[in-house]
Amino acid sequence: IKKIAVLTSGGDAPGMNAAIRAVTRSAIYFGREVVGIYYGYKGMINKNFQIMKSGDVSNIIQSGGTILKSARSKEFMTKEGREKAYQNLKEENIDALVVIGGDGTFTGARIFAQEFNFPIVGVPGTIDNDLFGTDFTVGYDTALNTIVQAVDKIRDTATAHERLFFIEVMGRDAGFLALNGGIAAGSEAVLIPEFETDMGTLETYIETGYRKNKKSSIVLVAEGDKAGGAFSIASKIEREYPQYDVRVTVLGHVQRGGSPTASDRILAGRLGVAAIEALLDDQKSVMVGIEFDEIVHVPFNKAIKNEKSVNQHLLRVLRMLSI
Amino acid sequence: IKKIAVLTSGGDAPGMNAAIRAVTRSAIYFGREVVGIYYGYKGMINKNFQIMKSGDVSNIIQSGGTILKSARSKEFMTKEGREKAYQNLKEENIDALVVIGGDGTFTGARIFAQEFNFPIVGVPGTIDNDLFGTDFTVGYDTALNTIVQAVDKIRDTATAHERLFFIEVMGRDAGFLALNGGIAAGSEAVLIPEFETDMGTLETYIETGYRKNKKSSIVLVAEGDKAGGAFSIASKIEREYPQYDVRVTVLGHVQRGGSPTASDRILAGRLGVAAIEALLDDQKSVMVGIEFDEIVHVPFNKAIKNEKSVNQHLLRVLRMLSI
Amino acid sequence: IKKIAVLTSGGDAPGMNAAIRAVTRSAIYFGREVVGIYYGYKGMINKNFQIMKSGDVSNIIQSGGTILKSARSKEFMTKEGREKAYQNLKEENIDALVVIGGDGTFTGARIFAQEFNFPIVGVPGTIDNDLFGTDFTVGYDTALNTIVQAVDKIRDTATAHERLFFIEVMGRDAGFLALNGGIAAGSEAVLIPEFETDMGTLETYIETGYRKNKKSSIVLVAEGDKAGGAFSIASKIEREYPQYDVRVTVLGHVQRGGSPTASDRILAGRLGVAAIEALLDDQKSVMVGIEFDEIVHVPFNKAIKNEKSVNQHLLRVLRMLSI
Amino acid sequence: IKKIAVLTSGGDAPGMNAAIRAVTRSAIYFGREVVGIYYGYKGMINKNFQIMKSGDVSNIIQSGGTILKSARSKEFMTKEGREKAYQNLKEENIDALVVIGGDGTFTGARIFAQEFNFPIVGVPGTIDNDLFGTDFTVGYDTALNTIVQAVDKIRDTATAHERLFFIEVMGRDAGFLALNGGIAAGSEAVLIPEFETDMGTLETYIETGYRKNKKSSIVLVAEGDKAGGAFSIASKIEREYPQYDVRVTVLGHVQRGGSPTASDRILAGRLGVAAIEALLDDQKSVMVGIEFDEIVHVPFNKAIKNEKSVNQHLLRVLRMLSI
Repeated sequence: IKKIAVLTSGGDAPGMNAAIRAVTRSAIYFGREVVGIYYGYKGMINKNFQIMKSGDVSNIIQSGGTILKSARSKEFMTKEGREKAYQNLKEENIDALVVIGGDGTFTGARIFAQEFNFPIVGVPGTIDNDLFGTDFTVGYDTALNTIVQAVDKIRDTATAHERLFFIEVMGRDAGFLALNGGIAAGSEAVLIPEFETDMGTLETYIETGYRKNKKSSIVLVAEGDKAGGAFSIASKIEREYPQYDVRVTVLGHVQRGGSPTASDRILAGRLGVAAIEALLDDQKSVMVGIEFDEIVHVPFNKAIKNEKSVNQHLLRVLRMLSI
Repeated sequence: IKKIAVLTSGGDAPGMNAAIRAVTRSAIYFGREVVGIYYGYKGMINKNFQIMKSGDVSNIIQSGGTILKSARSKEFMTKEGREKAYQNLKEENIDALVVIGGDGTFTGARIFAQEFNFPIVGVPGTIDNDLFGTDFTVGYDTALNTIVQAVDKIRDTATAHERLFFIEVMGRDAGFLALNGGIAAGSEAVLIPEFETDMGTLETYIETGYRKNKKSSIVLVAEGDKAGGAFSIASKIEREYPQYDVRVTVLGHVQRGGSPTASDRILAGRLGVAAIEALLDDQKSVMVGIEFDEIVHVPFNKAIKNEKSVNQHLLRVLRMLSI
Repeated sequence: IKKIAVLTSGGDAPGMNAAIRAVTRSAIYFGREVVGIYYGYKGMINKNFQIMKSGDVSNIIQSGGTILKSARSKEFMTKEGREKAYQNLKEENIDALVVIGGDGTFTGARIFAQEFNFPIVGVPGTIDNDLFGTDFTVGYDTALNTIVQAVDKIRDTATAHERLFFIEVMGRDAGFLALNGGIAAGSEAVLIPEFETDMGTLETYIETGYRKNKKSSIVLVAEGDKAGGAFSIASKIEREYPQYDVRVTVLGHVQRGGSPTASDRILAGRLGVAAIEALLDDQKSVMVGIEFDEIVHVPFNKAIKNEKSVNQHLLRVLRMLSI
Repeated sequence: IKKIAVLTSGGDAPGMNAAIRAVTRSAIYFGREVVGIYYGYKGMINKNFQIMKSGDVSNIIQSGGTILKSARSKEFMTKEGREKAYQNLKEENIDALVVIGGDGTFTGARIFAQEFNFPIVGVPGTIDNDLFGTDFTVGYDTALNTIVQAVDKIRDTATAHERLFFIEVMGRDAGFLALNGGIAAGSEAVLIPEFETDMGTLETYIETGYRKNKKSSIVLVAEGDKAGGAFSIASKIEREYPQYDVRVTVLGHVQRGGSPTASDRILAGRLGVAAIEALLDDQKSVMVGIEFDEIVHVPFNKAIKNEKSVNQHLLRVLRMLSI
């Protein structure tokens, strides 16, 4: 392996730039050439390639977004598209690929790797933390802190007006952000896709809180919650309890951006190095991850398919602390 | 005047606590007693009073929200309610009142002051900056910075994906936050209630930007814009330009909270002192404000009724800088 | 165990309030009474006690510092002082104690527990992360982020002026903050107490960086580094390399304060609950900690005496990424 | 005027990039060409020139530092150096120059403009706010907020330990940062170069505070204070009052960096546009500034030489609020 390409794909996550920097510099450290591919798989097909030197990744460790851009590619879902992408890699003598992204990214990578027997290693980059086999994904810690800081601000106004706030956070299939954000923000309850939302229980919590002289309450709702998002839950509660002054905020895309936290930058640094080392150790079709503070290699297929479960102990902690 | 009461009312704004601190401490400095009224006019009717000492306002200068809480009061809109409130003030020998809030707060204050010939001075506390006679209101600078920081985050993801974002900010009747936020965040265009939104012009800007190789665009929309909010504008644009990848974020209540900026704390400090000095100088039914860095006294009636206009020169600046 | 006291002691750390909240609420959840002791062991001797209800720990999860205050106590180092403290606990029918702090705190706790056979459980609260048996201490993640944000700011000016900056961070005996902060901030090198500072190596790094056209460099120095702090190292380098434009910043006490990060709040929540559960499970003289995301119990004696080593793999990552 | 050059010089300040963007884009808006000069006057001599297009200043409005770098130039202080610089400008057909910086920058600009009858307009960029003729300089508001956020963190630990903190902030000749920062941070006293530090008065404040049951105190010291910096004042106080637990923090270079606040970005935008308009209106040897929210033109000689005084009314506010 002499020339390694790197791309970012799917929803962007804070720390992707730190990961690009780590991939680029560690590859150069080991004497390899690096090519940046812009716009993910789309750029692989359109040959949006550029040689990357150490200086090209200077001063990006602190930036959100991704300097390599991201995009969706319908063409890459076709055999022809992937064939074209493969030819482009061959023409440029690219021997291996690092992809930074989430499950969609790894699904595409797996198929491509199989079809062309091409070495690909993945770095988990998604705010949702929903990849199996790694304790954390790059971007998750930053998004969690963004949520907590936003809820801190909303709590100011919730307390001043004694209101009940429903705050919707990202996480279509996974409640990591909502559950951990809820504990960190001192919320009264969380609604997450992993558990059927029991409106009765929710009401109990809210009532208990108010009875105990809590004058304001905050409930975090994951966007993927089966009860239907913050607005729909809020209107159910409003109907039931007209005495509550209910408000809704949907945090939205602010959760994807921002300067990465220390943890996310360190994680990105370690995983970026690990991805290059994995390629040099002849690994392919694996995601590098971190488990119990050690680097692990997880087959793409496992990272995508297996379910990563939220720590149920945390739900108990949340309940104890919201009394 | 021996005993002065202070309350916050209406939508809360960052810096209200710094204003409460300044009112309390400067009154004590001049040898007066201070009474905090909780829950605004509602608390005036329900006699939610509490003596305030210097130590009671320690360590609050940096907090968002208001330690005196805020609430709406329908009862205060009736003659009976105000009569009751007045009796409560008399019973406690309260001679004067400082109210911190926006136009609703001052409207109530003006009526009360007329009916009972009671000395009231107002401190402008609202994130909207829509009070006539003061260059800035307490909370505006903080909300502006909250907006800019949020847009900075969204720009990360807008740039990574090359999207067109419509971001809705507060300001039902006033475009200060949207216009100034738009300039500070480097947005392509702003839609504000002061001007009829001309969809044609908007389209021109967006098209010009894209033609000039701008790959992402951000448009700030004031919630009071006549074209109907960010979602409605976004869907018009989407229909017209299906090639654009359009997204909407409504910033919501995060704009009301958070630790106040340096400017807001200094403003709150100066106006809090000025409010007490105005009372001691026999002023009544005035809002204290700041114009050209000097303290001014503005009759409630002028502060509420007169229209404060946005600086049109800024619109020109925005246009030049978004090329 | 019916009545449990809680105190904070030693250097304060962000998240201590979140830990106090968790201890208080989980004890109440299990039907116990809670007493807050102000000013650490000093307050135990002076009987600075106060009953804590659930509402007393509302709205503190986001605050730095400690509402229970902290202090040093020489008297507690004497047998008489501790005897007095014990009598105070007995008089108030306090059956058990949770102490939140670092090694000094646990050393005192261990002696007290032995002398009076009194059940004490410790929660690790220190920004230095230097307690054995727990992967993280409460406050460490926040301090790390504070450092990284400060270095990000300094990098702006270092880059603009092409300077070499030595930045001193906390950590008298432990290099966790400097090493992890260095990786997260993209620094060129770190000097930590765990390793003899080899000036030659340092010079090599700096020279290499400059030769490779790096125009600015940042070196993080732990205050406990054997080479003598940032100022002393900087002057050595300046003598050696007069061509460099060298600057020094000592970050100082900002590292101890600030609103805790999401991680620190969650950790504080989990450990606070775990401390109460440990007492109810008849544990004593143990620190609760977190290892591999699971709660562990570590004898005070081990937590204090055993050395926790920095992850040497991280030094390698730092080197690769600073090329 | 067809081709306009722009440079930054002297100490960097947050918002310089926003000013570069505004100068560049408004010049292009008016159909002019723009040349960026790297490394200030040094780069003018070494011909570090680069054509700037609208896209070259994309996505920099939020960055601290200066993309055009800054440097000191001894050569520019000689007639020969300036001659060489002038020849370079002529060779590239540069007709006019915008310089962004502080008094050193404008002093150089004034001499150069006189010698070669060359049109130069200045934009005030310095965190110290010490230029006469403009209410605010670009960078001041950001530095003020950086200081206030740092003091907020230190207050956490000051309160927890009941300490007396002396915090040194920038401002060699001007106390704007210390005085306004002191009010905004709720400090007990400030020491600034504009006034002889009266140790007796300082002691009175500190004693009064402690007597009144204030348990912690914060004093802001401008680096240029005649009493000799925070360390020297702290040791005087410590000798006098051994009962106080005194600490010192020197904030240092963090004050120069960071993402600019909304105010600084808007100011930079307006002044950048105004600089280009001033050149097109045949102005030379003037700094553009803002007074009472209006653009003004101030001769370099006045901006540098005349003294800008701190608002003495603010000292009174500080005293009232620190009781």
